[in-house]
Amino acid sequence: MPKPRLDVLCIGNAIVDVIANASDEFLAAQGLTKDSMRLVDANEAKRLYDHMQPAREVSGGCAGNTAAGIAALGARVGFVGQVAPDQLGEFYRHDLRSAGVEFTTPAVDIGVPTARSMILVTPDGHRTMNTFLGAAQQLAVEMLDEEQIRAAGILYLEGYLWDPEIPRYAMVRAIEVAREAGRKVAFSLSDLFCVDRHRDGFTALIDGGRVDILFANEAEILAMGGVPHLETAIAAIAPNVETLVVTRGAAGALAIRGSERADIAAERVREVVDTTGAGDLFAAGFLYGEASGKSLEQSLKLGAICAAEIIQHYGARPEEDLRALAGELVD
Amino acid sequence: MPKPRLDVLCIGNAIVDVIANASDEFLAAQGLTKDSMRLVDANEAKRLYDHMQPAREVSGGCAGNTAAGIAALGARVGFVGQVAPDQLGEFYRHDLRSAGVEFTTPAVDIGVPTARSMILVTPDGHRTMNTFLGAAQQLAVEMLDEEQIRAAGILYLEGYLWDPEIPRYAMVRAIEVAREAGRKVAFSLSDLFCVDRHRDGFTALIDGGRVDILFANEAEILAMGGVPHLETAIAAIAPNVETLVVTRGAAGALAIRGSERADIAAERVREVVDTTGAGDLFAAGFLYGEASGKSLEQSLKLGAICAAEIIQHYGARPEEDLRALAGELVD
Repeated sequence: MPKPRLDVLCIGNAIVDVIANASDEFLAAQGLTKDSMRLVDANEAKRLYDHMQPAREVSGGCAGNTAAGIAALGARVGFVGQVAPDQLGEFYRHDLRSAGVEFTTPAVDIGVPTARSMILVTPDGHRTMNTFLGAAQQLAVEMLDEEQIRAAGILYLEGYLWDPEIPRYAMVRAIEVAREAGRKVAFSLSDLFCVDRHRDGFTALIDGGRVDILFANEAEILAMGGVPHLETAIAAIAPNVETLVVTRGAAGALAIRGSERADIAAERVREVVDTTGAGDLFAAGFLYGEASGKSLEQSLKLGAICAAEIIQHYGARPEEDLRALAGELVD
Repeated sequence: MPKPRLDVLCIGNAIVDVIANASDEFLAAQGLTKDSMRLVDANEAKRLYDHMQPAREVSGGCAGNTAAGIAALGARVGFVGQVAPDQLGEFYRHDLRSAGVEFTTPAVDIGVPTARSMILVTPDGHRTMNTFLGAAQQLAVEMLDEEQIRAAGILYLEGYLWDPEIPRYAMVRAIEVAREAGRKVAFSLSDLFCVDRHRDGFTALIDGGRVDILFANEAEILAMGGVPHLETAIAAIAPNVETLVVTRGAAGALAIRGSERADIAAERVREVVDTTGAGDLFAAGFLYGEASGKSLEQSLKLGAICAAEIIQHYGARPEEDLRALAGELVD
C-alpha cells in the first residue's frame, strides 16, 4: 500500500452558513426543533429568511468544517463536495483553498444555487439549522476522483450525505474505493434526526464492517443503539467498528477501540457564543491525531481543543491558531 | 413643511463586506495603505481575493451601516443604493430590511455583480479596504424616489458616492430635492484619499452652503482644511456648515455649531476587534440625536456609544442592542 499523499479526504455537503441571532420564542413560533437540522425547499428557505434577523455568511458544511480544521492543524487534507457556479460557490471554494484544503470538485450549473444553511443561534449559543441543499444534492459518482480517494489515508464522510439520493451513491462508491485501497473509513452520524431518517442504511454500513472510525454524539449513539442508556448503546455499537468516538458536549468525550477505552473532560471555555461546528471540529482534532499516530486519549484531547475554539465565536471554521492551541500535541 | 415620515434617509454605495484577517506584512507585500479605502477593478478584486485568508461576509457600505445603526436606535430610516439581482444583492436587501430600514431601490441587471469590499483586518483591529464597486456605481438619478427624499427630515450622504460618476449626479440631485423641501443635508467626507480625489467637488458643496451637518475624522478635516493643525482646520471649515462633527478615534470627538462647542471622550472598550464602521456608527448615533432633539453633547455621546459597540466585533452592523447601550439617551 503506497504512503498516502493526503492524510484525510472529507466528503460532504458544500454549504454556506447564513447565521443570525434568534430568540427561543422565534424558534417556537416557527415550529423549529432547537439543536436539530432540518432540510427545507427553496420556498421555505425564502420564507424563513424573510423573517430572520440580519445575518453573516461563512462557509460551513460538516465535512468542510472538519477539513478546514485538519488543515489548520497542519495535516494534508482534501474535500469533495458540489457547488454551483455562483457567488456562494466562489466564496466556498475560496474559503477552503485559502485554508489549505485541496478542493478540486468542479462547480456544476444545474439551475440550482450553492447550498445554504440558515442557522439560528439562540442567546445560549445553541444552533438550529435549516438547510437548503441546492447544488450539494447533485454530487454524483462521476464527480469523484478515485485516484484522490485511494491517495488518502482516511476517508471521512458525514451522515448528512445520506439525505439526498445522488450523493448517497457517491458516498457508497467512495467507501468501496477507499476500502479496496486498504484505507480507513471514518463516518459521522451527523444528527439525531438523520439517524432516524436513515437507520437501516447506517446499520448496514456499520454492521457490514465498512466503517472503521465512527463519530457520534450522545443523542445519536442512543438513537443508533435503540436504547436509552449510554453505556448500553456503546456496548452494542462499539464491537462493530474499529474505533467508536462519542462526544458529550460539556460532559467531555470518550473513545473505544477493542479493549482500550479513553475518557476526557471538555476544555474550559470563556463563553459559548455559537455551538455550530463543535462536532465537526472535534472530528478534525481526532482525525489529525489518528493520522499522526497519537494515542486514543491524545486524539480525544485534540478534538476537545478544536471544539472549544469553534464554540467561542460565530461560524464553524477556526479563527484562532489551532496549532498554537494544541501545543505539543501537534508535530 | 410637513412633518417628516422618515427621520433620516441615507444614500450610499450598497456593498457587501468580505472580511479576512491579514498581517501587516501581507499589506506591505500587496502595496496596500493601511486604514485606507482603495477602489479595485474586477481583475484586481479576483487577484487579491485569491491571496486572502478565509473570509466572512457581512452587509456593509458606509451609509448602509449608518442606516442600520439609526434603525437599531429606534428611529425611522431609509436607504437608497444600487444592488444587482444576485446572491450578494439578496443578502444586502435582507440585512437592511430585517434591521428595520426602508430599502426600495430596485436591483438592476447591468451585467455587473453587487459591490463587495475586501476588508483586511490586522491584529490591531485596523482595517484596509479594497472595494469593487460593481452595481453600486450605477445608482442613477432615475432610481431616486424624490417623494421619499422630501419625506425625510435629514438626508445623509457618504463622500464615497462622489467616486463613480453616475451616483455623483444622483447625489447632487438628491441634495437639491432635500434642500428645496427644507430638509437638512448631512455629509461624510468618508476617507482621507476620497478628500484628495474630490477636493474641488467637496469644497463646492460645503462652501456653497449645501451641507448642514458635516462629518469628518481628524485626517479628513486636516486634508479638507489644507492645514496641519486640527483647530486651524476646524476654524476654517466650521463657519461654512451649520454643524461640524469631528471624530478622533480613541481621543474622542467634538462638534461645533455656531458659537456652541462640545467635546467628549471615547467610550471605553474591552478589546478592539475590527474598526470597520466606527465612523458610520458614530454618524448613526449623532444623527439619531439630531433627529430626536438632543443636545450637541448628547448626540456626540450617542455617536461614541454606537462606535464603541461596532469596533468590538467583526463587521460594521450592530450586534448588541444599541438602545440598551444608549440607556436614557434614547426615547
